[in-house]
Formats: sequence, structure tokens, C-alpha cells
Amino acid sequence: MSNNKNIPYRINLPEELIPRQWYNIRADMKELPDPMLNPGTHEELKEEELYPIFCKALSHQEMDNKTRYIDIPESVIEFYKMCRPSPLIRAYCLEKELGTPAKIYYKFEGNNTSGSHKLNSAIPQVYYAKEEGIDGLTTETGAGQWGTALSMACAYYKMPLTVYMVKTSYNQKPYRKSIIETCGANIIPSPSETTNVGRAILEKFPGTGGSLGCAISEAVEAAVTATNSRYVLGSVLNQVLLHQSIVGLESKAAMEMYDEYPDIIIGCAGGGSNLGGLIAPFMKDKLEGKRNPYFIAVEPASCPSMTRGKYAYDFCDTGKVTPLAKMYTLGCGFQPSSNHAGGLRYHGMSPILSKLYYDGLLDEARAVEQTKVFESAVNFARCEGILPAPESSHAICVAVDEAIKCKESGEEKTILFGLTGTGYFDMSAYESFLNNTMSDYIPSDEDLQKAFEELPKIN
Amino acid sequence: MSNNKNIPYRINLPEELIPRQWYNIRADMKELPDPMLNPGTHEELKEEELYPIFCKALSHQEMDNKTRYIDIPESVIEFYKMCRPSPLIRAYCLEKELGTPAKIYYKFEGNNTSGSHKLNSAIPQVYYAKEEGIDGLTTETGAGQWGTALSMACAYYKMPLTVYMVKTSYNQKPYRKSIIETCGANIIPSPSETTNVGRAILEKFPGTGGSLGCAISEAVEAAVTATNSRYVLGSVLNQVLLHQSIVGLESKAAMEMYDEYPDIIIGCAGGGSNLGGLIAPFMKDKLEGKRNPYFIAVEPASCPSMTRGKYAYDFCDTGKVTPLAKMYTLGCGFQPSSNHAGGLRYHGMSPILSKLYYDGLLDEARAVEQTKVFESAVNFARCEGILPAPESSHAICVAVDEAIKCKESGEEKTILFGLTGTGYFDMSAYESFLNNTMSDYIPSDEDLQKAFEELPKIN
Repeated sequence: MSNNKNIPYRINLPEELIPRQWYNIRADMKELPDPMLNPGTHEELKEEELYPIFCKALSHQEMDNKTRYIDIPESVIEFYKMCRPSPLIRAYCLEKELGTPAKIYYKFEGNNTSGSHKLNSAIPQVYYAKEEGIDGLTTETGAGQWGTALSMACAYYKMPLTVYMVKTSYNQKPYRKSIIETCGANIIPSPSETTNVGRAILEKFPGTGGSLGCAISEAVEAAVTATNSRYVLGSVLNQVLLHQSIVGLESKAAMEMYDEYPDIIIGCAGGGSNLGGLIAPFMKDKLEGKRNPYFIAVEPASCPSMTRGKYAYDFCDTGKVTPLAKMYTLGCGFQPSSNHAGGLRYHGMSPILSKLYYDGLLDEARAVEQTKVFESAVNFARCEGILPAPESSHAICVAVDEAIKCKESGEEKTILFGLTGTGYFDMSAYESFLNNTMSDYIPSDEDLQKAFEELPKIN
Repeated sequence: MSNNKNIPYRINLPEELIPRQWYNIRADMKELPDPMLNPGTHEELKEEELYPIFCKALSHQEMDNKTRYIDIPESVIEFYKMCRPSPLIRAYCLEKELGTPAKIYYKFEGNNTSGSHKLNSAIPQVYYAKEEGIDGLTTETGAGQWGTALSMACAYYKMPLTVYMVKTSYNQKPYRKSIIETCGANIIPSPSETTNVGRAILEKFPGTGGSLGCAISEAVEAAVTATNSRYVLGSVLNQVLLHQSIVGLESKAAMEMYDEYPDIIIGCAGGGSNLGGLIAPFMKDKLEGKRNPYFIAVEPASCPSMTRGKYAYDFCDTGKVTPLAKMYTLGCGFQPSSNHAGGLRYHGMSPILSKLYYDGLLDEARAVEQTKVFESAVNFARCEGILPAPESSHAICVAVDEAIKCKESGEEKTILFGLTGTGYFDMSAYESFLNNTMSDYIPSDEDLQKAFEELPKIN
């Protein structure tokens, strides 16, 4: 079945090859992302201004554009050993099913209870907070992957955690709630009576199901008003991309063991944590002129921040309480439709990835429709034996398209994509696909234009 | 953190060390299990009598008491490569949490979409049926792990499959149904209108939620009445224990790499597939007098076939259509209470394990109560980062008890247990534990006595 008998189905790097340092791509970018701005003064944000929100070590990592390699704390490495190195899998069965000459690899991050790559950043974020003597953390979660990963990390470090979960998801996904509670975290449906912003929204919209923007606002308020508490976030931020670089570093090391190098690298992109981490060390090669892999970001057609958004300063949340970041955005007031890939329903995009895309280094962004994504997901589950998360399935979908192009052209390209997680908590989405009740939604130009009008007026 | 820096958290055997042969423990047993009997004549069953139910290769494996090692077909090895060798994990975090001098290892079988060890037998069962030109398979499923694994295997080999799922589970676990449908199988709530036995039961008990016994009867009827169709089963049978020996073979090979050997081996036991597979090669050492590991079977106090059952001939199903097997049984009419570990709610036990236990070679059976099991499960999830299935958590519970004994005695024992799968589809059980609405149920002596009265009169 294999077209190269020497390459195993699953490349498991030995434990001693877990990277000891994260890679900070900002140190190698010729042009840096534009700095974050204070939302009140529009002045460049100083590191100290982040201290009430994030702990100091993370605030520093957020602002550190210079240090190329940053040591992973020993305690974090110890935890990583429970689920890392994650396997790099050669998709022999998928290749055979497609009849493609392409070699397809995927880095699988779903083999931990949280079921996704989110754990890679959750662990260091909780570790640093613990080190600095922080007494509790707050966060928000939409689809629930981040909330689950963070609750696992907090269980491990015995750190109290409050998760504000978008009320609609809280009601629709009771098992996400259960798993977060199993890890010992406190979970509150948002909007709630526990914060000023929550109470104000409930008074104005008594029956609302909430939104990610509102949950962020509540989590931030809860952190900054409590004694010695901090807020943590699972994507978008520079610090998160830094931690996620472990995904790319391991992928590169595993491929090098077999003299392989990807021609095409594909990742789904919501806030950018997975794609940014996966491509980081390969982008380094490109920036240094050593190699020229082709990078593709895949986003849902229902929330097309890179393919149809503007590159502009915007708030990171809907409640407009965060600093401003220069990024591809649909406007923080954009309301994405109910796409089942909850992890990709974000109005903006990591400032690092936005800059790389703007500069033509991240080669392409491609928007795909939901039903096509689930078609790929079901085929993948049937032949590769892994039930993919809807988010990850965006990458599968484009990897399959590229492999079919290779079949047509006869090119033996090497494709690498990120399989960020499993879909065990997304079975209702699979069900609606199988029952033909899933619909595709693409926002109209008018919808987008209306959201763009709310962008802050800067530059 | 680790007390032996040379042993990694996860021992991943390389792909080339996937066993090429299953181990058939019957070839080394000094006394064989008593033979299966024809339920009508009470005569010893002949291999040919199984052909209408199982395909020929599997019928032969079921009866083969002599061949010590049986080649694993190349195609099955190719599939195994997608998820095997499964990791043997050193539970450093659990050891630290318990403060025990014991070394704890677990063989984790949950890293595939089916989420359990059931896939190990599903794949060869479908392979042999495909090889013999069988056109379709039927099975039943209770908790859903077997149904999921089999639907994955059938998707891989493009074999039509009909799953009779106990109606109560079908309604309570809609996502199990979805995942089976995602794999392309047909799923029917049982009892159904599709079989004579189903229609008869529905007429007699119009509102019934069904039972595993009824689902087995429907699946068997559907197989033997359809053209060129066969029935498959995920536990209890000799053939299943044979296939599951891969779990033990890999565990032993992984431990040998680090000069380790278990003093205590622990597995949960419902029908016996996991425990039988895990202990097989270690039992060989015991039978040959080379080593003397201590084996513990763990069962739910609510369904205590080994600890409180009789060693007697009984039907394998509630509908009394199957051959008779000599085993530890509570009587095929025994109705287990709603224990959340659906995979352990079986009235009988593998005839091989039953014989080993009867002969004192399987050292101990221990029954544990549900709430204690879930307490272990939650603690394990919090420190080891894996959400265990309720079934697997029975083994965790006893492993923890043994590790605590080591703490008290100061003994540095090496403990190995089977972590058969993940609990993603069991969150409602976790929820009832966390909400303190979970209850323990232990059948009374009178309940058991009543069920024993229905045992067939043989000998």
C-alpha cells in the first residue's frame, strides 16, 4: 500500500526530541506586525499596560519581537511529555483512496483529553501564572476546545479557573460543560449576573444567547476586578503563536528524519494559533531564502476574514474593551452565522499571520463552504480512522483538493496539513450534514460593508 | 518528577514491532475450557455448526485450541499501523499524586476514532468476511463502542453493516448513532420491526427499551436469514481474545525494552476481551513457570459475574438462541441495573478467562462500586490528561488501590493496567457523578438466586 516502505504510517519522535525552546518568528520577520495600540489614546501600547490583564512573563512574550528562541520551562516540558511529541501521520489510506501521486502528511494534535492543539498554549499560560503567584484565571470559550484545554491545564497546576461560555453553546453542548467541570473548573453561561457588562446586556436583551465578544468582556472584567486574578486567551495573540510553534518544530523534525520537506503547507485559520504554529519554522526557511514552501490558510466562507476582510486596526473583541491590533478583520461587530466550526468564527486574525499574508509570505488564503468541508471530514473519518474536528476539516478539504490537482498533473508533491483536533463533541454537526439539513451561508458584500463601517478610524 | 529518568512517559514501539502473529493462549493451557454445546442436543458443538453464523476462518479460530501463534493477515497489519502499536504510558503524574513508590503503567487503547480496543478484533473479523466473499454483516451494540469500532472496520473494507442498538442507548446516546452513521453503517433501534423476534417482543411489550439479549437475537436472525450475511461479536468469544492478544504482546514488548516486568496486571472485565488480551502473554509465562504476575479482573458490583456468579453452562444471550458455553455467569436472564459502564453489563464471562479463574491462574476478581470508579476516573482525568471510559476506570480504581497499598507497605511494585478507551460519549455519566445523582446498586442474594434458577440443567 505504501509507496515508500521506509516511511511509517505514524512518525513518533522520541520523547527526548521534544523541542526545548519555542520559536519566535517575529525575530526573523523583515517587517514586524504593527504594534498594538491603547484603545483610548491610540498610542503604542507599553508592556506594563498589559500587566493587569496578563501575567508579566506572558505580557513580555507578547511584546518580545527580538528573542528568536525562548526556553520552554522544565515543568511545561514535563507536561508536554504526556501527549507530545504528537504523531506526524502519513495518510497512506487517503492517498490510496484519492489515487494521487502526492504524499500527504498530517500533524495530529487530537490525542489528549482536550482533543486539540489548544493544550500547547494552555499549559505554559497557567504555568507562568502559577509561578507569579496568581490566585485565579478567567477565560471565555465558544466552541469549547479552549475552555477544555485550559481546564485541564488548571487541574494539573491546581489553579482556580472560571470559564465564561457563550450561553448558546453552554446549552447546545452540555457535554463540553461536563468535561470542563470534570476538570474542576467553574463554568458560567454568558451573559451572566456575575459582571457589570453581563448584567447590562441581560437588562437590555433579556433572552440573548450571548456572543464570544460578550464572554470575552465578562472574562476580562472578572479578571481585572478580582484580587490577583488574570485573563487568558487561546488564539490570536503573539504569545499563543509562540507556544504553538512546537507543532511546526516537531513536524519539521519528524519530516527531516525521513528526508522529507513539504511543498505545500495547509492549516485552518480562525484566530491563527494552529496555522501560525505549524508554519513558523518553515516560514523561517522561506524568510532566509533556503526553501520556498507554499502556505495556504483555510477559512470558512461564512467568516472570511483573510479573503474578504480589511487589513486595519480593530478591537480583538466585540465589546471593544481590548487593545487595538492591526489585522485582517471583518470588523469586530461582524456577526458570523452559525457555522459548526465554532473555532473559526472570529472576526479577526493573528497580527503576525495578517502581516505575513499582507506581505505575500503566507501565499494564499482560501475560503471553503461548510458542506464541502463536512464531505471531506466524513471521507477522512472513513479511510483514516480519525474523526476530525470541523475546524481541522477545513484543512483536510484543501489538502484533498491539492492532492487531486497532483493526480491531474502527475506531480508528486509533498503536502503537510495540521489536523488540529477531534470532533467527538461536534456530532450534532455531523448529524446535520448526514441528514442534509446543513446549509452554507456566505455573507453578502452589503453585510461586510456594514461591519467595516464600525472599524475604528485610525491612519 | 520521574523516579527513573530513562523510562519515557509514553513508550511508542516502532511500527516494525507490531506483532505479526496473535497468541492463542489455549495452546498453552494445561486444562482447556469445556467445549461449547449445541443448545438443542447438548452435544459438543462442531466447527461446521458455526458456519451459518460466523465465516469459516473465524469459526476455525473459535475452535482452534492447538495453534499457539496465528499469523495476522497483511491487510490487517496495514490497518493496525494507523493506530498501533498503541502507547504504553508510565503514569508518572498519577504516581506523584498518590505519593506511591509503585511504578504504574497503562496500555492506552483509546487513540482511534472508535475510542477503544474493540477495533483490534473488528478489523480481522471484517477482513475474513470480506475474504470469504460475505456480502454483509450484522451485530448488536449496547454502550456503542463495539458498534463504532465495527462500523469503522466496515467503512475501511467497504462492507455493508447493520447494527442493532439497544433502543434505550439509541435514544440516550444520539451521538454514538451519529458516529456509526458517519462511518456509513445502517443502525436500527432494537427491538425493531425488521425481525421476527423483534416483532414478537414489540407485540408483547409495546413500550420496551430493549436489551442486549434481544439485540443479539435480532442481529443473529438478520444474519442467518439474509443471503450470504454473517453475524459478528465483540467480546466473550475465543476468537476475540485471540485478536486482543496484540494488546498484551505489545505491552510485554514495550516493558521488555526497559527491563520492566509487571508484578500486578489489572483489567476491567465485562465479556473479557480486554483482560484476556492484556494478560495472555504474561499468563504464558505463568503457565510455563517462568514468572508469577498477580492477575486481577475488575468488574462492577452491579454485575458481579466472577465474584458472585456460578461456573456453569449457560446461553451467551438472553434470547437463548446461541450455543451454550461453560463460564462464570449470573444466568442469562439476569437483568443488570443501569450501570453507566455499559460495556461491563454482561451476565457471563469469556470461557477462557472463566477457566483460568476457576483453576486459580487468574488470581483474583474484585467487584467495585460505580461511584468509587468515577471518583478514580475524575482524579485520573485531572492528573493524567486522559478522559477514561467508565469501563476502563474500573481498572484505574483497583490500580490506585494497589498503588496505595504499596505506599503503606513501602513496596516498589510494578503495576500494569489496561486503559481500554476514552469516555467522550459517557459525559452524561460523569455529569451524574459530579451532580451527586449517581447511585450504587448491588444485586441482592435473592436477585441472583432467582436468575440462577434459569440456568440450563446440564451435567
